[in-house]
Amino acid sequence: MAHAPVVDVLSGKYAVGEQVVVKGWVRTRRDSKAGLSFVALHDGSCFDPVQVIALNSLSNYEDVQKLTAGCSVAVTGSVKSSEGQGQALEIEATSIEVIGWVENPDTYPMAAKRHSIEYLREHAHLRPRTNVIGAVTRVRNCLSQAIHRFFHERGFQWISTPILTASDTEGAGEMFRVSTLDMMNIPTTDKGDVDYSQDFFGKETFLTVSGQLNVETYCTAMSNVYTFGPTFRAENSNTSRHLAEFWMIEPEVAFADLSDIASLAEDMLKYVFKVVLEERADDMAFFAQRINKDAISRLEKVIDQDFVRMDYTDAIDILKNSGKEFEFPVEWGVDLSSEHERYLAEEHVGAPIIMQNYPKDIKAFYMRINDDNKTVAAMDVLAPGIGEIIGGSQREERLDVFDRRLEEMGLDKEDYSWYRDLRRYGTVPHSGFGLGFERLVAYVTGMQNVRDVIPFPRTPGNAKY
Amino acid sequence: MAHAPVVDVLSGKYAVGEQVVVKGWVRTRRDSKAGLSFVALHDGSCFDPVQVIALNSLSNYEDVQKLTAGCSVAVTGSVKSSEGQGQALEIEATSIEVIGWVENPDTYPMAAKRHSIEYLREHAHLRPRTNVIGAVTRVRNCLSQAIHRFFHERGFQWISTPILTASDTEGAGEMFRVSTLDMMNIPTTDKGDVDYSQDFFGKETFLTVSGQLNVETYCTAMSNVYTFGPTFRAENSNTSRHLAEFWMIEPEVAFADLSDIASLAEDMLKYVFKVVLEERADDMAFFAQRINKDAISRLEKVIDQDFVRMDYTDAIDILKNSGKEFEFPVEWGVDLSSEHERYLAEEHVGAPIIMQNYPKDIKAFYMRINDDNKTVAAMDVLAPGIGEIIGGSQREERLDVFDRRLEEMGLDKEDYSWYRDLRRYGTVPHSGFGLGFERLVAYVTGMQNVRDVIPFPRTPGNAKY
Repeated sequence: MAHAPVVDVLSGKYAVGEQVVVKGWVRTRRDSKAGLSFVALHDGSCFDPVQVIALNSLSNYEDVQKLTAGCSVAVTGSVKSSEGQGQALEIEATSIEVIGWVENPDTYPMAAKRHSIEYLREHAHLRPRTNVIGAVTRVRNCLSQAIHRFFHERGFQWISTPILTASDTEGAGEMFRVSTLDMMNIPTTDKGDVDYSQDFFGKETFLTVSGQLNVETYCTAMSNVYTFGPTFRAENSNTSRHLAEFWMIEPEVAFADLSDIASLAEDMLKYVFKVVLEERADDMAFFAQRINKDAISRLEKVIDQDFVRMDYTDAIDILKNSGKEFEFPVEWGVDLSSEHERYLAEEHVGAPIIMQNYPKDIKAFYMRINDDNKTVAAMDVLAPGIGEIIGGSQREERLDVFDRRLEEMGLDKEDYSWYRDLRRYGTVPHSGFGLGFERLVAYVTGMQNVRDVIPFPRTPGNAKY
Repeated sequence: MAHAPVVDVLSGKYAVGEQVVVKGWVRTRRDSKAGLSFVALHDGSCFDPVQVIALNSLSNYEDVQKLTAGCSVAVTGSVKSSEGQGQALEIEATSIEVIGWVENPDTYPMAAKRHSIEYLREHAHLRPRTNVIGAVTRVRNCLSQAIHRFFHERGFQWISTPILTASDTEGAGEMFRVSTLDMMNIPTTDKGDVDYSQDFFGKETFLTVSGQLNVETYCTAMSNVYTFGPTFRAENSNTSRHLAEFWMIEPEVAFADLSDIASLAEDMLKYVFKVVLEERADDMAFFAQRINKDAISRLEKVIDQDFVRMDYTDAIDILKNSGKEFEFPVEWGVDLSSEHERYLAEEHVGAPIIMQNYPKDIKAFYMRINDDNKTVAAMDVLAPGIGEIIGGSQREERLDVFDRRLEEMGLDKEDYSWYRDLRRYGTVPHSGFGLGFERLVAYVTGMQNVRDVIPFPRTPGNAKY
């Protein structure tokens, strides 16, 4: 007899009367005075558990009456139309085999009651058994599959850029050092520095903060490429938006300018939001009901609206003339803060904004200088309800301009020799963006803290499990 | 006018006579005495370049005659039926815009001649421009997409297990330490040890060697899960099969025994081999022609053959009675070496083998003890032409047996408290396996060294780029 996932039973893949075996964990048990019990069984395949009817004629009905949240069982039975409210289909058991009991149900950390999200975080190895983290897990998976599909359908190649790097030239943030040196016996050079020539890689080595510079080497050969992998920041940020380890998606497109990449970002967000609303309607209904009432409607709005393109310089004027008091004052040249971004996206425009052409002094060395020589071809996607969700730019492909910019910023050409080679040999205009995957999952689910949308969050002071 | 990928032009997506723009890099240029030039243009979208015909009536024909390998161009022209041999379609240019020249073609590292694979490795930032690494990149991408699709279609959730971990309990290999401590000023405790409480995570922290233990927490909640992410080994192995940083796929299935997971491994390999033969026929033809003449036929054989299941104990008898002289002698209890595995798969059986039930003393602490109390429910998939490609096991789900095994092996229960919780609360039989992604790509392409199937290989002494 087929081992049937709960999702297949509930979606009617099996006919009424058909015999099935379902296997999973008890969410709740309710005993009726009529001499039968109702067991809600989940197996992770969809949001809802399936209701199992256990009659007292079962040979081990005494055991059934001892089932508590978290017990694992294998149920054999027939599919039935449900007479009760809720689901259309349920299972009437002919046998319930208890596979694993819960040791002391009174102290089971995931007992069937409402737990705070902070409590769940403290039990990260058991929290996937809850409704909320189960739903997050399915949505996270759905988004990841949709992203791979989006790029694959468009002829992009997934490139696994390195996690370990001896380049300290990325400049995107504080880095973690990776080493096999004996910490109690660090070798030093004649000059008294650490002798990294004795380390595993023969050089000081770090965890990557971005795959962009590396993936540009593949972009300038394969045209359309993207990364999807972990990146790291050793920043002591204890906020709801920061992780020391997070996943990033970074497409890079040859022969594409800022406008092309902005369109790609808009298309990608709309595509993955559509997929998640279609494929995870059950989980999204839960998020709208219990986590953020706008969870579904705000995705629908993003899908339906054209993103508004706005120059940074115009945005500054709008903010200045808004009559609003901002905590951080607005002046051309400042970086926009979250309050500015959200005012623009939520109040002024009421739609996602593609903010573009930022002052070069607040942006990275690799961004393409505009003709005004004051701004660079950079863009951020600002979404209502969250602010910046994507950051990208056209890259400086002109070797002479790039070299001048390195000099201006006091950077050493030698450190960028392989990156410069891409400009020396058949250079092309190219552009890309970065999307923090956990911020995307948080936005879609309405979860307030990125620590709750990654299985085992890494933050200052915490690398447990 | 549409920017047309080369693959779309060659596959006939555009009608003969239709105007298109193609953009890419010059592979070769050949001038005809008839006053025209042939430019082979590649853009990474498929193995073959498209042939561009440049008549001397082009306004910049002098420039065209200077084009060399690696120059980037945008070609506008009409699709033509080709009169020459080879491809059916080509482009007759009405304009060729040179976007980027190659600085000093005589010293361009990727000039149009045959380079050794070792030379290409030394120029890892430019090697994707070559035929061979371009083909590897497309096959690698194809395999990765096929793996995600295989699991997604079967209801598996992709789980991103952590890269950074404070657990040193995995025991699968030497680990890299991750730290932000000042290496010239390591803080120590009263006892004279390194004071990791002052480090970023407040504990000694490493790069993961496997996501398995972590993903078991999701398996025992969501039933069907898998990881696909980077893993690390700080082993000083300079072989063609080892990398310090490599990608691994680790499915984990609840309510599955060793036989179930062996079937999953067989199904997965057949599925992804079929996909790559269908979707990357062009690249596979190249590998069969230039890298390994069996590249295609051996995949076809794996697809067509049933994998043979064989007990370790029987394998030992077969090897002993084989009459072969092996470098490493065979005795019950020894780990099989590559020569043994290849003899069994290639000579004795002539098909992939699922070798199972190994002696417990040569296997990991988490594998399920068989009733004989001498062997564990472990399996390896041995493929002709490569040997071990997958390793897996049923996990010990019985708390009392697991605890006895920890004790036997001198391991501390306290270190495994969260892993033991999975056995204390609704334990279930479950099984999983690990597949090293680079070994898979090497097997499929016939490339001899895993360093050539990952963009930027990390090995002892090398973390360049």
